[in-house]
Amino acid sequence: MSRSVVAAMTAYTLELREAEIKLNQNESPFDFPRELKEHVLARVAERPWNLYPDFESTALRTAIAKAQDLRPENILVGNGSNELLAAAIGAFVGPGTPVVFPRPTFALYEKLVTIAGGLSIPIDFDPDSGFLPLEAMLSALRKYENAVSIVCSPNNPTGGVLPWGGLDALLESGAMVLLDRAYGDFDAAVGGGAPLENLVTFRTFSKAWGLAALRVGWLASTAENCREIRKVKLPYSLNVISEAIAALALQNRNIRDANVVRIIAERERLVAAMRAIPQINVFPTKANFITFRTNKPLFDALWARGILVRDVSAYPRLQGCLRVSIGTAAHNSAFLAALKEVV
Amino acid sequence: MSRSVVAAMTAYTLELREAEIKLNQNESPFDFPRELKEHVLARVAERPWNLYPDFESTALRTAIAKAQDLRPENILVGNGSNELLAAAIGAFVGPGTPVVFPRPTFALYEKLVTIAGGLSIPIDFDPDSGFLPLEAMLSALRKYENAVSIVCSPNNPTGGVLPWGGLDALLESGAMVLLDRAYGDFDAAVGGGAPLENLVTFRTFSKAWGLAALRVGWLASTAENCREIRKVKLPYSLNVISEAIAALALQNRNIRDANVVRIIAERERLVAAMRAIPQINVFPTKANFITFRTNKPLFDALWARGILVRDVSAYPRLQGCLRVSIGTAAHNSAFLAALKEVV
Repeated sequence: MSRSVVAAMTAYTLELREAEIKLNQNESPFDFPRELKEHVLARVAERPWNLYPDFESTALRTAIAKAQDLRPENILVGNGSNELLAAAIGAFVGPGTPVVFPRPTFALYEKLVTIAGGLSIPIDFDPDSGFLPLEAMLSALRKYENAVSIVCSPNNPTGGVLPWGGLDALLESGAMVLLDRAYGDFDAAVGGGAPLENLVTFRTFSKAWGLAALRVGWLASTAENCREIRKVKLPYSLNVISEAIAALALQNRNIRDANVVRIIAERERLVAAMRAIPQINVFPTKANFITFRTNKPLFDALWARGILVRDVSAYPRLQGCLRVSIGTAAHNSAFLAALKEVV
Repeated sequence: MSRSVVAAMTAYTLELREAEIKLNQNESPFDFPRELKEHVLARVAERPWNLYPDFESTALRTAIAKAQDLRPENILVGNGSNELLAAAIGAFVGPGTPVVFPRPTFALYEKLVTIAGGLSIPIDFDPDSGFLPLEAMLSALRKYENAVSIVCSPNNPTGGVLPWGGLDALLESGAMVLLDRAYGDFDAAVGGGAPLENLVTFRTFSKAWGLAALRVGWLASTAENCREIRKVKLPYSLNVISEAIAALALQNRNIRDANVVRIIAERERLVAAMRAIPQINVFPTKANFITFRTNKPLFDALWARGILVRDVSAYPRLQGCLRVSIGTAAHNSAFLAALKEVV
């Protein structure tokens, strides 16, 4: 029989539906270039598959450190940033540790805190503002010693961000801050790559880099924090093929930069067009998705028109809300046309 | 600052040394066939890399279930069997849960139990016997309610196995049994793929299949246990390339079978030859490695001759012991010649 806290948990689920236009998982609409795929796979075929990956992931950690103007000991890489988040929570959150995070946010955080036996302190906020609830988080952090704070900025699934100066304020509270920048490429404002004592920053190759299939993430922090988190992280968690692809991607940063420019431009076009639809309420967003409230259920009506979005209405404070990922211009236009039909 | 239990932990380390002949990580000496590599990589290049893996890993779970005469709901796949072990421990071991395991064994178990806040109950045994300490484990299990037992059979790093009927006896104790069969391909005796209520069996593609670089493992249990463990496991933990390669491997089971036959034959040859060396004491082994005790330090002397083995002398009860993986016939012969020189 599983532990009572696990038995009480609901599984993370994804509604599995086929659709012509898939805008439900915040994926990049742009695949990795074919010639680079072939180049890296040819090298991968040469490499022995019977031998474990490099124990230290030195090649990729060094490449990331160089790109970030940090040192390799400030970087850990993993099987998606989720794995590193789980390891960091394992390192810093024990039974009873207070963990302050905005709500609604990425559901995984609370689940990992529950598994660790931590005390979840969700801070409800209104996603309509476009900002995370900094003052309320600081108030909560002042009440606890040795608190941990988890912040996703831009926030999934609302799109809002920490207010200007918010990260500094959180750090000044003395809390350990786990900053999830999965969507950070689409918003330059927060910063937060510096290896500060109480800050761990998480990034991913899944969104702006368009490598979700490969599962590669990384974190940056002080060498000491990296050493502690690494004690909890499983060894050899990054396979050699994904590692090679991520390292090659970093040598071709123009791919990521072009993706980001195109996605932000489409996001701004789509937000403006959606704001002109009176029946919906669009939340401000700095991510690669747009979350909006409707007063009638639209998920199935959009799906019937070939467009799969994410129903996020079960999240606290998101009743009646849908989330649409930014796709190609053609897909976004198709979504917009369908939306206008069904509202 | 990290949690006190984490701060007190020592990191899992691997002595990084270059050597002509690498027999330190229990890897298969046989790479995946080149034509199959190219076949699967060509398919992988066609697939979009910007989209997440299948949420359910249905293709690989179905292929494993078919090969094992089970149903897909009895199977979970993950990023190496370690990830699944960690998830199972997260599901079944909470603060204070008693966890009984032999010692010495794979160091990860105790580390994961510590992170989960469980009560580690290591059962010391003499690796010279070739058997895990079944009676002592049963005695310990009788003392606790809701205990969990972790057994690696064949056991890393000693090579010994559960005595005949040992798995049934452990299950009859009522404990949840986590059975790590990472080395099970090299020992047909234990069985243990059946989806029994209190049994979770872990397997890997890293050893007999020769796919350590890819990080693919799986577990088999009841559908209910799989559902509970899946709540703890991170979603999307298996990248699309490793998943495709593992699925292709299962269609070519002759590769694994040939590897196993060759490795067992070499193991038996090497054990017999090592037993003839009076200065060392070879432990019985059913795995793809041999652990032996020496009365003088040989690690560096072997390394100076181009042969890297694993120094396991820091494990409890393994003072003065080295572990050598079974390699190709040529590498094994080179090891044997070097060993005879240095003893």
